[in-house]
Amino acid sequence: MADVREQLVSKSVNTLRMLAVDTIEKANSGHPGLPLGAAPMMYVLWQRHLRHAPAEPSWPDRDRFVLSAGHGSALLYAMLHLTGYDVTLDDLRAFRQWGSRTPGHPERGETPGVEATTGPLGQGVANGVGMAIAERALAARFNRPGFELVDHRTYVLAGDGDLMEGVAYEAISLAGHLKLGKLTLLYDSNDITLDGPLSLSFTGENVAKRFEACGWQVLRVEKGDTDVDAIDEAIAAAKKETGRPTMIEVKTTIGYGSPHRQGTSAAHGSPLGVEETRLTKEALGVDPDDTFHIPSDVADHLGGAVERGEKAVRAWNDLWEKYRAAHPGLADEWDRAVKGELPGRWDEAIPAWEGGEKIATRAAGGDVLQAIAAAVPSLLGGDADLSGSTKTRIAEEDSFDGVTGAGRNLHFGVREHAMAGVCNGLAYHGGIRPYCATFFCFSDYMRPSVRLAAMASLPVIYVWTHDSIEVGEDGPTHEPVEHLMAMRAVPGLTVIRPADANETAEAWRAAMKSDGPTALVLSRQKLPVLDTKRFAPAEGLSRGAYQLADPPGGEVEAILIATGGEMPVAVAAWEKLIGEGIGVRLVSMPSWELFDSQDDAYRESVLPAAVRARVSVEAGIRQGWEKWIGLDGVAVGIDRFGASAPGPENREKFGFTVDHVAEAVRALIGAGTA
Amino acid sequence: MADVREQLVSKSVNTLRMLAVDTIEKANSGHPGLPLGAAPMMYVLWQRHLRHAPAEPSWPDRDRFVLSAGHGSALLYAMLHLTGYDVTLDDLRAFRQWGSRTPGHPERGETPGVEATTGPLGQGVANGVGMAIAERALAARFNRPGFELVDHRTYVLAGDGDLMEGVAYEAISLAGHLKLGKLTLLYDSNDITLDGPLSLSFTGENVAKRFEACGWQVLRVEKGDTDVDAIDEAIAAAKKETGRPTMIEVKTTIGYGSPHRQGTSAAHGSPLGVEETRLTKEALGVDPDDTFHIPSDVADHLGGAVERGEKAVRAWNDLWEKYRAAHPGLADEWDRAVKGELPGRWDEAIPAWEGGEKIATRAAGGDVLQAIAAAVPSLLGGDADLSGSTKTRIAEEDSFDGVTGAGRNLHFGVREHAMAGVCNGLAYHGGIRPYCATFFCFSDYMRPSVRLAAMASLPVIYVWTHDSIEVGEDGPTHEPVEHLMAMRAVPGLTVIRPADANETAEAWRAAMKSDGPTALVLSRQKLPVLDTKRFAPAEGLSRGAYQLADPPGGEVEAILIATGGEMPVAVAAWEKLIGEGIGVRLVSMPSWELFDSQDDAYRESVLPAAVRARVSVEAGIRQGWEKWIGLDGVAVGIDRFGASAPGPENREKFGFTVDHVAEAVRALIGAGTA
Repeated sequence: MADVREQLVSKSVNTLRMLAVDTIEKANSGHPGLPLGAAPMMYVLWQRHLRHAPAEPSWPDRDRFVLSAGHGSALLYAMLHLTGYDVTLDDLRAFRQWGSRTPGHPERGETPGVEATTGPLGQGVANGVGMAIAERALAARFNRPGFELVDHRTYVLAGDGDLMEGVAYEAISLAGHLKLGKLTLLYDSNDITLDGPLSLSFTGENVAKRFEACGWQVLRVEKGDTDVDAIDEAIAAAKKETGRPTMIEVKTTIGYGSPHRQGTSAAHGSPLGVEETRLTKEALGVDPDDTFHIPSDVADHLGGAVERGEKAVRAWNDLWEKYRAAHPGLADEWDRAVKGELPGRWDEAIPAWEGGEKIATRAAGGDVLQAIAAAVPSLLGGDADLSGSTKTRIAEEDSFDGVTGAGRNLHFGVREHAMAGVCNGLAYHGGIRPYCATFFCFSDYMRPSVRLAAMASLPVIYVWTHDSIEVGEDGPTHEPVEHLMAMRAVPGLTVIRPADANETAEAWRAAMKSDGPTALVLSRQKLPVLDTKRFAPAEGLSRGAYQLADPPGGEVEAILIATGGEMPVAVAAWEKLIGEGIGVRLVSMPSWELFDSQDDAYRESVLPAAVRARVSVEAGIRQGWEKWIGLDGVAVGIDRFGASAPGPENREKFGFTVDHVAEAVRALIGAGTA
Repeated sequence: MADVREQLVSKSVNTLRMLAVDTIEKANSGHPGLPLGAAPMMYVLWQRHLRHAPAEPSWPDRDRFVLSAGHGSALLYAMLHLTGYDVTLDDLRAFRQWGSRTPGHPERGETPGVEATTGPLGQGVANGVGMAIAERALAARFNRPGFELVDHRTYVLAGDGDLMEGVAYEAISLAGHLKLGKLTLLYDSNDITLDGPLSLSFTGENVAKRFEACGWQVLRVEKGDTDVDAIDEAIAAAKKETGRPTMIEVKTTIGYGSPHRQGTSAAHGSPLGVEETRLTKEALGVDPDDTFHIPSDVADHLGGAVERGEKAVRAWNDLWEKYRAAHPGLADEWDRAVKGELPGRWDEAIPAWEGGEKIATRAAGGDVLQAIAAAVPSLLGGDADLSGSTKTRIAEEDSFDGVTGAGRNLHFGVREHAMAGVCNGLAYHGGIRPYCATFFCFSDYMRPSVRLAAMASLPVIYVWTHDSIEVGEDGPTHEPVEHLMAMRAVPGLTVIRPADANETAEAWRAAMKSDGPTALVLSRQKLPVLDTKRFAPAEGLSRGAYQLADPPGGEVEAILIATGGEMPVAVAAWEKLIGEGIGVRLVSMPSWELFDSQDDAYRESVLPAAVRARVSVEAGIRQGWEKWIGLDGVAVGIDRFGASAPGPENREKFGFTVDHVAEAVRALIGAGTA
């Protein structure tokens, strides 16, 4: 009997291996090295430990699995097929083809069962940490005695390349700090990277010891190519250790089974080819004439996941119905959280400001955050060690505790990149509305994760403060100049730079309603609140750009466009110019993306095509503003890095003065200097 | 005697502390916490170990010191003043003011003695690793028996925040791998970050053990606030260990001496204020009525650095003169390397390609690199584990050996961010011409360091390949779409995207001649070489944009602008359109920055203001192209993320077809479809 069982295990592992290889061969593109080496750990994890429900891939209490080494996608797709997800053999045959649900690297939303978009190395590790945090936070919020509604684990499969990335180190350190006991990282340790043996670049380091230094339990499986029981025992030991995360170093052979490629970097990223595929199948005891072959006993064996999953979901649904009866209010909250819906009247307590007050938009943003946090319990976030400056601490809440899940202020530490990757994980998990904050300049550190948030359309909110040369004394290293334009370049990211406190409130409203990521770009310096007796109300922000004011006569000769902290100088210039009888329209343009999404008629109403005398005012690079001012307009901006000097002096020296702006308008329409 | 000596030491340390504090008070801005805590280690390092020459801050064989915790700038400026650099008391009084040489964070080039622009955390650690690599490389190249021309050490002072950053971890891991024995990192370990005690975010980790895991020697100084001898001994022990880098954890008290602030995060980033400054001076035994006070014995003591430095330089100059006599050829090479000059005829062997050949620009770039590497021995670089794909391995050279310094291929591992930070360090050091490579998509990981290269004007060359949706099967995670525009946004960075092999050669020429950083953005896919019998020669690249061809009649109705891999489709569309009798000019625009730097007349000659029918073709976001095509033109581009499909299919689906481009031109000039 033991033999039969063992044979089935080995047959299943080899089926998985060759299904992945055939998938790659069919596409003539892909990475066979990881699937051949990591199939045993995939098998053990998915068959013996992972609590999942292939027929209900969005079951909230499922275990999460992240393939951080996203180039091994064929292995994941093969497993999804074998365990009964809606991934067909035809889907596998369409691997890496236009419009298929089996893209080259896993993409959340494209394939049932894929939890995260991965491929850029290291990201999945941070995503997994975020998921494990989300589980704890939801458990603390919803579990009640007798109702363990939330109780699942997070598994990450990572390779050497993942673990060399700084973002992964940051996330590992944070996970250790938070003592995330339900997080397990399977390390596919094969001593090979793309360029050759790992010894070329990674000998100095003892990865296991580094994880221990970060507070993780570390286990090791010596024969990861064959010893499924050792993998099994290690995962069981990981589950037993509840006080800290576990890393299991599984020693494998890249390209295992391929006679000419195994153990070499040649196995990593190129299809084996027809001949080598045959030889590999022969070496693994698989019929070389079969492709996409799944023996029926293997199909039954792995396909058992469907029934196990259905049973688990049924049990959970029973618990859920009892929970709803016992805790109806919480149950409603749960529903909203899981669907990502906002509670009714969630924004009622958001403050409004009177014209004439002076308040930095970062401070206004902090006030808005308090109101939203009180009304939206799903909101969870934090800061990369600058919350005193970014004003993003939720005053009424404790620091997040990774053991109990209590507290809603996440202290990310000086780990901007992991912060963004973890927020992606929080959003992937569901039930949480994540935000995070740092200085706008350091958004550069977060950029690879921001890109993935945009690609996967994750509703993460970035609060980026200290948004211009008005940062002042800290100097050019801390003064964003190119960042607005560089972030506007990211497809799917909505960038909003409000001009005063009331626009900041509207910006937060827009961010909370968005399905995708939103960046709130806020000032360090105080800004006067625009007087709604004289200027259009801030609600116009929702359309991206709007007329703040038109000239008294109504006839528009020129358009003055400003964003954020440059609005005060634009307002003063506008007042001066209309005082001179020049017909200037003043436009606030807090968000290019929101304006782009309006219809042509609205855009034309704000920026009539016939009016080509247009001046933009923004303390960032000029390049890019031609989109709105064309070849005939003038952009008042900065084409160099900033300077270390008091903020107001910087403003003056860089030309953000009433005279300079007014003169730019006059020159365009051929009016003389007043 | 011992007492007198000890008193002088303590007086010197406190002078340093209070000079920094007074500097910050005068500016009413800055970070007193680190200077008060780290003054003892600064004192010991600079007074007893650092080989430097204040009167000759560019002496090539000086030890390098990098203040990675750049917010402690006041401490560095105070030390530069006290040791005789050209930093006056008036300079200190102008701290953080417009135009001063004492900006808020250290900036290379602004202040004699400042080796690196720091402030964004973690960067200085990577810079230091780069400097230590440069020292080894130059030693291997120039030292000869009896002539240790190159023999110096690199010291980095880093804080907790630095070491939490992923880029620092990556650099630390690389330094351990390379066994950089002459690198010492002083860790100002004070258990405090901006948001409060480090325990908020950093308890899980044993930093010392993590360094050990990365192959470093780790030493510890328990009483870093007072125990200068223990610091002294630790640095001496670091110098003795030649087989691996050393980290010295120096336990300090942030804001040491300030009665109400010391040991709290309040000391970190705000001036102490008048009253607390008085109290701090009193606590440290300094007269509270004195500001910017330097006791004469302290001035003499620390000012001794000038004479020691002059002596060291004289000795080195003697050695150098003998070296020149013994090794005249090498001496000439040395001169060129240190001045950053290229050898004569350095570019003669760069290949040229015949029209009609087909070659990917990454492959052409690889060929060009071989020719340049053979002629320019200062060239040193490498890749983030993708050299097989980026074609950036120098074929005739070995892998770089961190012990001997031999070999010119640096294997950075999957550490893109540290790669860029290390290249900055190589450039800061001098004598080395650095380049580095990865996929263009992953330039996002490098961005914070690229920004600093641009700010400090470092001649680093980035080779970014796989530059569009033609990456194909690997899919959107690996396909740059927004990156061209996002990199063009960085002031001071020259971005070049050549259209064929010959433009690639010209791009490398431009990069090698540049004083600042240059990005070479290269194709994965093969591109036909433009036939110079029909099209203008690639030398036009040096001006950023140029007419490839005009319509036969000469009259220009419309302008078609393309870059890089989209040139083939633009050429075909141009041919089609002129065949229809439409007067279309074809412009190659490989570099916006080079074109921007031309005079108005040249730019007008390429893009006459009168011709507003302009179509751009680039496989990246449309936004930004309005700079050249205005409000009336059409940009053929991509406003979403890419897709996983074969490259040619992507090209077609995303609209990069002859018909689509030709129709865009026709529609603009009101011509009917052919």
